[in-house]
Amino acid sequence: MQKQIILKNRPSGTPTHENFGVVQAPIGKPAKGEVLIRTLYISVDPYLRGRMNDTKSYIPPFKLNEVIKSGVVGQVTESQSDLFQKGDFVLGSLGWQEYSIAGEKSVRKIDPNLAPVSAYLSVLGMTGLTAYFGLLDIGKPKEGETVVVSGAAGAVGSIVGQIAKIKGARVVGIAGSDEKVKFLTDELGFDAAINYNSEDIGSSLQDACPDGIDVYFENVGGVIADSVFPLLNNFARIPVCGAISSYNNAEADIGPRVQTYLIKTSSLMQGFTVGNYTPRFSEGIKALAEWLTTGKLKYEETITEGFDNTIDAFLDLFKGANLGKALVKVAEIE
Amino acid sequence: MQKQIILKNRPSGTPTHENFGVVQAPIGKPAKGEVLIRTLYISVDPYLRGRMNDTKSYIPPFKLNEVIKSGVVGQVTESQSDLFQKGDFVLGSLGWQEYSIAGEKSVRKIDPNLAPVSAYLSVLGMTGLTAYFGLLDIGKPKEGETVVVSGAAGAVGSIVGQIAKIKGARVVGIAGSDEKVKFLTDELGFDAAINYNSEDIGSSLQDACPDGIDVYFENVGGVIADSVFPLLNNFARIPVCGAISSYNNAEADIGPRVQTYLIKTSSLMQGFTVGNYTPRFSEGIKALAEWLTTGKLKYEETITEGFDNTIDAFLDLFKGANLGKALVKVAEIE
Repeated sequence: MQKQIILKNRPSGTPTHENFGVVQAPIGKPAKGEVLIRTLYISVDPYLRGRMNDTKSYIPPFKLNEVIKSGVVGQVTESQSDLFQKGDFVLGSLGWQEYSIAGEKSVRKIDPNLAPVSAYLSVLGMTGLTAYFGLLDIGKPKEGETVVVSGAAGAVGSIVGQIAKIKGARVVGIAGSDEKVKFLTDELGFDAAINYNSEDIGSSLQDACPDGIDVYFENVGGVIADSVFPLLNNFARIPVCGAISSYNNAEADIGPRVQTYLIKTSSLMQGFTVGNYTPRFSEGIKALAEWLTTGKLKYEETITEGFDNTIDAFLDLFKGANLGKALVKVAEIE
Repeated sequence: MQKQIILKNRPSGTPTHENFGVVQAPIGKPAKGEVLIRTLYISVDPYLRGRMNDTKSYIPPFKLNEVIKSGVVGQVTESQSDLFQKGDFVLGSLGWQEYSIAGEKSVRKIDPNLAPVSAYLSVLGMTGLTAYFGLLDIGKPKEGETVVVSGAAGAVGSIVGQIAKIKGARVVGIAGSDEKVKFLTDELGFDAAINYNSEDIGSSLQDACPDGIDVYFENVGGVIADSVFPLLNNFARIPVCGAISSYNNAEADIGPRVQTYLIKTSSLMQGFTVGNYTPRFSEGIKALAEWLTTGKLKYEETITEGFDNTIDAFLDLFKGANLGKALVKVAEIE
């Protein structure tokens, strides 16, 4: 038997333990063409909050009483597929459970020699690719331009800022604690960082961006985003990746309308999800891996130990507790 | 002597006659390389409201006590330039006055045989080009897609909808009176039109767009725009041309934030101004003129007679009084 986490009922506002259930289920046996996978790492991500609502989006909502799914790295413990051997490391969209049975086409092998396997859920995974394509394909930062990133110490934001630095931009991060601000400037080489919890975001942003803002990578929304719009330069670009400040709003998310700001500066806002770039993933992984191995790109992971703490790790995302990618370590590599 | 209209003080909220002054000034004589132009038509446009504020935008604010400028069509009455003869029709950005002196490089000749000269301020002028580039370069409507236009009976909107029809889209217009709705469906061939003053915009829009919205051409902003966002299809495009509902707001323009809508649908919002497309104007004029001469494109003008009514014609824009392009006819062609 193994443990699984299901969505018991849909959160209204901020999710709590009450919304989830932990159930026991048989581990099962793989059929022909399937593998049995022992979960090593589970990715907890803000976007999963959206899937807990019963509303139309780019990805269908979770069903009640079904196991929650996200990115998982695991190790094959039994293979009924010619494509995998026992001991192989794999990546897939799998359940929040200790073991998964997966079809051979639904997971892919990852190389533990290129990077620690957890990196395939962070810098070499969806969050790294989200940063890569959102910034470069939509944000298009040019040398000397000013790039502002919100959620800057998070999984996506921390990679965005570093790629923008690689491209020669001046990078300003917005984050929620002095520890994060220090991390951004001292560890990741951001030119400036702002603690929105202790500073007046409007005036700090103006001070940090004396030449205005050319690219704003949006992870947060809300009043932080509101303070960016008046500082946009002509032809500014805003990749809209996330709006974590509003994910738990039970009420409508209200603020200044953006139309006049966009008109006055001929600026662009483009919502996106990393899935739009699936045909180009190998390009992104190649670039990220190269920056990683040449030391141009650092990544941070906040790892919560133990399957039983998975729900807490998810809930912590909305408290801004994580530095870099939030992961749950379920088991040791064998 | 002639009459001129100056900006006496900056409007707070909706402009009134108090904000303008009518003064007498000498007509003057053109120097070498200049022409004297008798004003025939003055273009009154919503964007001019923005220039009456003392804020940074894509175009500098009007100065106090200076003559207001906009698009003007006139006739040369005296030429000190080899490029122009008496009687030539010209287009330029000129003052709200009965006569202008202009350098030969600052105005261009227009052909009265291709279209009535007023058309160079409407369908063949800035508003036609705004519709053309905003819709085709940003909106990119495809055959069978649903295009929604706000301010649909206005100068830009009425052209946008017709170009979208030419491109094979299903076109839904939003306007402010039953007369305008009738004009859009009966005269311009829109597939549907909504009177936002008498209908519930949210449910009417949903009824009129059973397959969702692929392109929203934004002229209005405010609650009309708010009702569009929940109906966006994946990869929708929103050319942001104007936001007339907010131009006279003394208070902040507050509404639902758009980030989550953009993320869920990977939609794009792009502010623009026709000046961005200056290098491609001849392409736009050629296409518009061809559609005009082949009867594919109709245009409407609301012409106010007499220079003394210029201010009223401008103020009427914010009452939604105009059908198509609002112009002031100052003098007859000689």
